[in-house]
Amino acid sequence: MSTRSTSRYEQLTRIPLMILGLLFLVIYAWPILDPEISRTARSLCTVASGLIWAVFIADFLIRFALSDRRRLFLRHNWLDLVLVALPMLRPLRALRGVTGLRVVGRGSAPFARRRVVAATAVAVAAGGVVAGLAILDAERSSPAANIRSYGDALWWAISTITTVGYGDRYPTTVEGRLVAGALMIAGIALLGVLTASIASWFVERIREVDATEQQTQAALQALTDEVRELRSALQRSGGRGGDTRA
Amino acid sequence: MSTRSTSRYEQLTRIPLMILGLLFLVIYAWPILDPEISRTARSLCTVASGLIWAVFIADFLIRFALSDRRRLFLRHNWLDLVLVALPMLRPLRALRGVTGLRVVGRGSAPFARRRVVAATAVAVAAGGVVAGLAILDAERSSPAANIRSYGDALWWAISTITTVGYGDRYPTTVEGRLVAGALMIAGIALLGVLTASIASWFVERIREVDATEQQTQAALQALTDEVRELRSALQRSGGRGGDTRA
Amino acid sequence: MSTRSTSRYEQLTRIPLMILGLLFLVIYAWPILDPEISRTARSLCTVASGLIWAVFIADFLIRFALSDRRRLFLRHNWLDLVLVALPMLRPLRALRGVTGLRVVGRGSAPFARRRVVAATAVAVAAGGVVAGLAILDAERSSPAANIRSYGDALWWAISTITTVGYGDRYPTTVEGRLVAGALMIAGIALLGVLTASIASWFVERIREVDATEQQTQAALQALTDEVRELRSALQRSGGRGGDTRA
Amino acid sequence: MSTRSTSRYEQLTRIPLMILGLLFLVIYAWPILDPEISRTARSLCTVASGLIWAVFIADFLIRFALSDRRRLFLRHNWLDLVLVALPMLRPLRALRGVTGLRVVGRGSAPFARRRVVAATAVAVAAGGVVAGLAILDAERSSPAANIRSYGDALWWAISTITTVGYGDRYPTTVEGRLVAGALMIAGIALLGVLTASIASWFVERIREVDATEQQTQAALQALTDEVRELRSALQRSGGRGGDTRA
Repeated sequence: MSTRSTSRYEQLTRIPLMILGLLFLVIYAWPILDPEISRTARSLCTVASGLIWAVFIADFLIRFALSDRRRLFLRHNWLDLVLVALPMLRPLRALRGVTGLRVVGRGSAPFARRRVVAATAVAVAAGGVVAGLAILDAERSSPAANIRSYGDALWWAISTITTVGYGDRYPTTVEGRLVAGALMIAGIALLGVLTASIASWFVERIREVDATEQQTQAALQALTDEVRELRSALQRSGGRGGDTRA
Repeated sequence: MSTRSTSRYEQLTRIPLMILGLLFLVIYAWPILDPEISRTARSLCTVASGLIWAVFIADFLIRFALSDRRRLFLRHNWLDLVLVALPMLRPLRALRGVTGLRVVGRGSAPFARRRVVAATAVAVAAGGVVAGLAILDAERSSPAANIRSYGDALWWAISTITTVGYGDRYPTTVEGRLVAGALMIAGIALLGVLTASIASWFVERIREVDATEQQTQAALQALTDEVRELRSALQRSGGRGGDTRA
Repeated sequence: MSTRSTSRYEQLTRIPLMILGLLFLVIYAWPILDPEISRTARSLCTVASGLIWAVFIADFLIRFALSDRRRLFLRHNWLDLVLVALPMLRPLRALRGVTGLRVVGRGSAPFARRRVVAATAVAVAAGGVVAGLAILDAERSSPAANIRSYGDALWWAISTITTVGYGDRYPTTVEGRLVAGALMIAGIALLGVLTASIASWFVERIREVDATEQQTQAALQALTDEVRELRSALQRSGGRGGDTRA
Repeated sequence: MSTRSTSRYEQLTRIPLMILGLLFLVIYAWPILDPEISRTARSLCTVASGLIWAVFIADFLIRFALSDRRRLFLRHNWLDLVLVALPMLRPLRALRGVTGLRVVGRGSAPFARRRVVAATAVAVAAGGVVAGLAILDAERSSPAANIRSYGDALWWAISTITTVGYGDRYPTTVEGRLVAGALMIAGIALLGVLTASIASWFVERIREVDATEQQTQAALQALTDEVRELRSALQRSGGRGGDTRA
């Protein structure tokens, strides 16, 4: 019931859940990458995928039950909730194996530019890999599609994330366009985080120079004060023993 | 005549005007989304659209009449003036229903990064929805057009806002290109606000660290002063009762 | 020979030079926009263009001769020098009429975010208009060109500056590609200035909040000092008349 | 073994290594730009390329052996290590001739915005030139390729770096797509550094204004203190000769 039991539970389940997430990714990717998969294998994948989803739902409910401040818990874990609650976000659930999204999604981690950038890079790379799978899955059904292999899908994903968009490969189905829209917004966020981290690094460096200059000025001021004090002390010893603070 | 009556008027009319704006959006969208609409319905839409416009003009004039500092009023509400004055910006007027643009356009709201980002996101999303309607309206007349359904139009809008620009869908008419140009500039602004807000969040976090360090330094300085003072007091009590400030 | 005569010369010539720049733009644009221009008119344009160029060279030399610190003058006006010296940058010279580039190019103007953004916007808009002329001029010679009217050229220019790049219109000649490259870099710079100005506006707003907090802290500190002083004064009047600085 | 011998070694080898890098670029570029090169010349290029690579490996090992803090050396020179270790990054090795990457890659250089921007610009320009060679090399083997000359390749490179991506030219082979992916990420980094440097320049300018205001405030405070001191001294001379610090 306490935050202590929450963090102990999270410590215990972190590695197993990561492995389950990776397994989910494999199960999700297999029928997409190998369309001539046997009917039995495909059914197995569907069942396993459902089971892992059930585990994810259970994990979320347990963490919610263990948490002290449940409103705060929901605010910090809304991404997990959305991923668990909406079946159509199935591909995104595969991202849990990469943990990138979890790091970004939870606000508890202490601030560090390097970590934010690293987490964004990992999340975007994983997003590209998963978006490639999702678009291939969506486009396969369309006869007019131009994304026909996973190589094409990855190539399309990188040219979309970077907002280059040659237009030699693009989605033609509604599902594919939804995946593409999500990836475009991820691409913009990537650009934003990258630019912002470089900018804040610049500003920080300048700030350091500033601080040094201020310390120099302070030291100079202190020295000046000392000299002035000495002079006034000399004046005092020559005249009356009173106090003059200048 | 006073700011008090202005704010009371705005309080009273806010919800009705929002509903009128949404109605305007519906009336604007309907004949575009359903080209086989009956002649009567189309005429009705045109009349209703003109009536709502008249209300918007009246609202602007009333607010102008009520305001104390009219120059300031015009400077803060130039966006409303432009929207009301130019008939060709009809699609943009539909945005008033979403209120996004009003929040951004008026400078009176207190500063908050979260609100600026939220308002931009809402305005850009609404802009995309309305730009999709406007481009569909413009392109329908052209036989060479490649944007032929609202799905296409929305897909074109998101790939334009994010500056991806695959080029599988693009406007071919002059009106369509004008709409596209406006959407591109909105896309750049979106990128700018997003990046800037992430950057300022970074800088703020670093500043907090800075402030803490400065307070530590100040505390240390105070402690040092105290000790020095104590030492000089001890010296005084041993020698003459004069003043030494070091 | 003095800076005073420089600034007086600049004051006198500013308006005439701006008019000459606009004239240059007209003379540059006319034969491009109207390819069926008479042979005489085309010759006249060439002659007039050469004459205006001569005036620009003379203006640069006079300003150089009048300036006190010639190294500094060259550093601040290198853009003018490049525009005047290279005949192939003829289209850019037309930008002088818009004065945008001059404002940006010269470092003498006092800093103001609003002005930098406005100057960039004007320069980029003017750059788009002139790049449209230059690309139309370049592409007209190519039978495979897809930019065939000034409307197409402007449409291409805006989709390039915003880095959308649909690819429905693109240059096919070497000259056209050089113009496009310059415009792309201008597009990136536009994005940079826009984002940076929004970011610095955010940071400034936060700084103001900071400053207020610091003043509050300073006031509190002053109050604390006063109280402490009062207490020590009370102690003094009760005991020995010495000095205690705490 | 000391940092002194490292820096002496680097001073001695800098120019020769730069020349070797340029030579490597020439040897790399020649067979790509002239596909009808004789078999002998092609073999010569391969041999010379291998020899220069051997020199680069030797240089890296010597610098590693000379360095005091080898972990730090590896951290600062990981880019050199990767370039030297992976044969598939051969095109990137040609960048050493341009020195741009070395400046960016090594963290030892003191901070300066101007230098970071200049180094990025040089590295990106060099990257575009080399990526053009690499993509031409990769695409030549494909019959479906649309990048068929170095002019096309450079044009493709600039429209990719700036993320415009018209899509009139794009890679069709796996190798070409890998080169393109690297260039896209370089393009994003370029945008980031450019925007960040403009933003930090803005912030710095505002900081200067801030500093001036703070100095004014400090001066005012000092004056106030002096006046207060004077007043208290007057009070003292009228009353008892004690000390009052207010």
